[in-house]
This record gives sequence, C-alpha cells and structure tokens, in this order.
Amino acid sequence: MTRTIVESKSKTAIIGFDQPFCVIGERINPTGRKALAAQLEAGDFSTVEKDAIEQVACGATMLDVNAGVVYNSNPNPNETEPPLMRRMIELIQGLVDVPLCIDSSVPGALEAGLEAAHGRPLVNSVTGEEERLERVLPLIKKYNVPVVAISNDDTGISEDPDVRFAVAKKIVERAADFGIPAHDIVVDPLMMPIGAMATAGLQVFALVRRLREELGVNTTCGASNVSFGLPNRHGINAAFLPMAITAGMTSAIMNPVRPAEMNAVRAANLLMNHDPHGAAWIRANRAPAAEGTPEGEGGSRRRTGRRRG
Amino acid sequence: MTRTIVESKSKTAIIGFDQPFCVIGERINPTGRKALAAQLEAGDFSTVEKDAIEQVACGATMLDVNAGVVYNSNPNPNETEPPLMRRMIELIQGLVDVPLCIDSSVPGALEAGLEAAHGRPLVNSVTGEEERLERVLPLIKKYNVPVVAISNDDTGISEDPDVRFAVAKKIVERAADFGIPAHDIVVDPLMMPIGAMATAGLQVFALVRRLREELGVNTTCGASNVSFGLPNRHGINAAFLPMAITAGMTSAIMNPVRPAEMNAVRAANLLMNHDPHGAAWIRANRAPAAEGTPEGEGGSRRRTGRRRG
Repeated sequence: MTRTIVESKSKTAIIGFDQPFCVIGERINPTGRKALAAQLEAGDFSTVEKDAIEQVACGATMLDVNAGVVYNSNPNPNETEPPLMRRMIELIQGLVDVPLCIDSSVPGALEAGLEAAHGRPLVNSVTGEEERLERVLPLIKKYNVPVVAISNDDTGISEDPDVRFAVAKKIVERAADFGIPAHDIVVDPLMMPIGAMATAGLQVFALVRRLREELGVNTTCGASNVSFGLPNRHGINAAFLPMAITAGMTSAIMNPVRPAEMNAVRAANLLMNHDPHGAAWIRANRAPAAEGTPEGEGGSRRRTGRRRG
Repeated sequence: MTRTIVESKSKTAIIGFDQPFCVIGERINPTGRKALAAQLEAGDFSTVEKDAIEQVACGATMLDVNAGVVYNSNPNPNETEPPLMRRMIELIQGLVDVPLCIDSSVPGALEAGLEAAHGRPLVNSVTGEEERLERVLPLIKKYNVPVVAISNDDTGISEDPDVRFAVAKKIVERAADFGIPAHDIVVDPLMMPIGAMATAGLQVFALVRRLREELGVNTTCGASNVSFGLPNRHGINAAFLPMAITAGMTSAIMNPVRPAEMNAVRAANLLMNHDPHGAAWIRANRAPAAEGTPEGEGGSRRRTGRRRG
C-alpha cells in the first residue's frame, strides 16, 4: 500500500491509497495574482498570513508555497525567488503547523525552501526535462523528501496520454537511479482544461489508474485547471474531484476555502470508506433541521416499496 | 457498445456506455409519501401532474411511475395498484413526452402499465426471486421491453458483492432463456446507505465495473439511498453520482428537481466527454458575472507559473 509521508515539525500528513484525500492548499501563490505579487515586493506578507491561516481552518492537509513573483525592480526569478521562498516558509511555519509543499520551477528556490522547512516537506516539482531531472533529483535525495513529478518533458506537454505515462515512468526510473523510492514520487498527470480538450477528464482518469496500478505511485493535480474558461467553475471542480478520487487520485492542489470543492472531497472520502463512522462528514455538515423527512427526498422509500410485494 | 432503447410515443431515450447519464425522475411514487397516497385514494392527481411537469422541466430523461399506495379503504395492492398504474400512465402521457419507467412489485400493475404505455417503456423491476422471474420475464418478452434487474433473490439482499453479481448474472442468463438480450437488462446493484455500511460505495463502484465489463449490461440505482440518515444528503448524493458515473454507471433513479444532484450529473457528463462542446453545461450554467478572474480561483495560474522556469 503506497504511502507518501510528508511532515512539519509537529504533524504528519500521509498521501496514500488507503488515506483520506490529501488537500494541498493552492492559495499562497503570487503567479497570476498581481496584487499579491506587488504586496510581496513591498514586503507586505499580510495576504500570505491570511491565506495560510484560512486554508488550514478550512481543512487543508498541507499548504503549497509558491514564491513565483516577478518584481518590477528585478525580473530575474533566480535572484528573487530563493530569498522570498525562505522568508515565506519561515513565516508560515510560525503561523500554522501543517506540512508544506515547496513549489517552484527555480531550483535555487527549492533548495532555499528545503533549508528553511522543518520536518519533511513535499517538493513541487520535477519534470521529465533532462536539465530539471539533473538539478532536482539530487536535492530530493540529499534532503530525503518526496517530490511531485509532472509528466511533461523537453518536448512539452503531450496530448497523448501514453506519452505522459511514459514520461512519468521515466521520472520514477531516474529517481530510482538516485535511490529515491516510488512511494516518494507523487505524479501529476496534468489535467488540461476540459473546455479546451473534451477528452481531458477521461485521459486523466485512465492515467491515474495506470500510474497507480503499474507504477504504484500516488498522484496529484492542479484541480482548478479542469474548469478553466467555463461557467460555474466550482460546479465542475466539485464533480471532478470525486471522479478523480474514484479513479484513484490521492491528492490535489486546490482551493480549500471553497465549500463546494471541500464538501465534495469530504463526501468522496466518506464514499471511499476513508472517513470512519462518517465522523468528518457529520462534523462538517451537522444540520440544525431534520433531514430525511418522509415527504422529503426519497430516503429509503424505494427499498421500503420493494419489500411490500 | 451496449445501448438500451426506451421510447415514448414521440421520444427515444438511450441508456448507454457512450451516452449522457440517464436521469430517471423518482418523484411519482406514493411509497413513503403519505400525503400523496391520500390524494391518490381521493382521486386527486394534482401532485402527480405537478411532479411530472416539474421533473421534465428540470431535465429528467425518463419518469419513474410507481403506484405503490396502501389505501385505507383497501390494503391489497394486487387490487389497487393495477388500475391506479394504468390511470397514472395515461395521465402522465397526456402531459409530458418523455419515456416512462413502470415501477411496481405487483406483476398485475406492471402489465396494466404495459398495456397503457405508448412506445417502449422500461419495466422496474424483476429480481432474482424464482417466482418473480417466472412472472415478470414472460411479460418482458411479450411486450419486447427493457427491464431493471435488482440483484437480490429469495435469500434477500446479500452484503457480499460477489453474491449480488451472481444474482445479476443469473437474471441475465434466465432472461436469455426467454430470448431477452443483455442490452435490454439494466442491473440495479443495490446501493445501501453509506451510514449503515461503510463499504457500500466501494462495493457498488466495483460491481458496476464488473457488470459492465463481464455482463455488458447497463446499470442503475436508487441514488438517494446512499445518503439515508446522514446530514446534508444532497452533498453526498452530488458526489456519489459523478463517482458512480466514473465507475461506469449509466442511469439512476433520482430527484431531478434538486439542483445539486442535477448539476453534478451535468458536470460528470462534461468530464466523461458526453456533452459535445460543453453545450449542455453552458446552457444550464450560463453565468451573468465574469468567471475565472485573475485574482479568482486559480485558473491556469499554476501552469503559467511552470512556464517561467
């Protein structure tokens, strides 16, 4: 049974086939959030603090920390990201106790985050690109941490799921060469927007099953991508997550502050028998009014009806 | 590719592996609805009329019609159900044009419904009980209609999914003896309340896959049962339906008037590539305000972030 162990100073999160779905909070990320990027450049971390506390309060298992700013004063991320990552990690660790996910495409920022983080953070990410494999995998080995592996390589993101599977397999094999076990690789099979690629959902569900059965790895994805460009994005995300979980996905980088998505994850945990006695569901959904009244929503009416005959 | 054809006088509904999920409206059912039962005994069909029109307006593909009343004046369903079923079918056919599902455990009521129904209704249901097989399958053959097969038999409802599969297989084989093809059998693997049986979801997902792969049959279930006795039932149902669809379920008897459940089904259709160009999703969810603003819900932010490095 595959389990990826991620730790803060005081808490352990397990990503695994037999575990509740791991919700990695996506909010601490200035990429595409201009106001946040400007705040960070000005040394204002109030939004980061708020996002950290709020996401944990809403049930995030882990927090993604991305320092992907482009400062007006310095457009070079290799210079700006490492110190910002270190500072954000230190700040967040002082506020919340969940494990962290160090998210950068700048290897120097990953290393700065690894130096600053307590426990055993998740590194996000390595890809199948040769240069990236050679830069990131030694870090993973050195710090003995798990890593997100994104299934694109030097040829880009393939629309062919067999190619994406092959890239994931290559990363797992290369990691093994460094002595990194498969249970420390969390593969992101790349969820494309369904509005741009109608088969994107089916592809990812099939890929997740193969990754789990053939490579024995945990999986994750940027769940919000699926609904990009379509109306009622939360409605799509809230269906996608239970579907991905049914296919075998074990974590997602998502917005835990959105009740639609979080309740969908909680219901999926319940239906996958990953919520003993429904305790988490009942705690999150305790209703003041009576549910399941006879004139209500069906209940066990149909079954009762059958017993008559 | 398995397809079950169900027809009214003017409309065809297809239950199939390559089709949008078939929503069978559950509301026209006096079992457990005392007020409705009393109305029907008094000859008042206003609720039936309202339920028929409303369910079709909300997007039901098909309507279940159950005449399971217990009159104060006559407690014998073998006498009361057949004429009531006939009258309800005639009434509903005059109001809406979707195909119907004739739902009774009284064979006489099934036959009365079959005589009254136009086109090719779905019969709900036969079980694996010997007496029921011998009574219902000849009717199915005589009227050349499809039938829901519930996977319980003379020993009751087994908690063992292998036994439930074996019962379904027996029904399919017995139907074949009568010349009824597997594509005219829609198996209900029996969704137990998750609050009573924690493995009920996993069991049904696994059963649906087996029924589809090994017997090549379509599947259905009473979807509301899953959440019986728990708070926020719609939240559970709205996650269960996309999960069951991912496992391969092709229809459900459910309440189409509930937006949470119906939108979950629409999103699942979109994600299964059963909604060309997302047209049905967009029609149902056209939002007045802008979606996916940069400061909003993630969007393709994460991907954009990756491209930097």
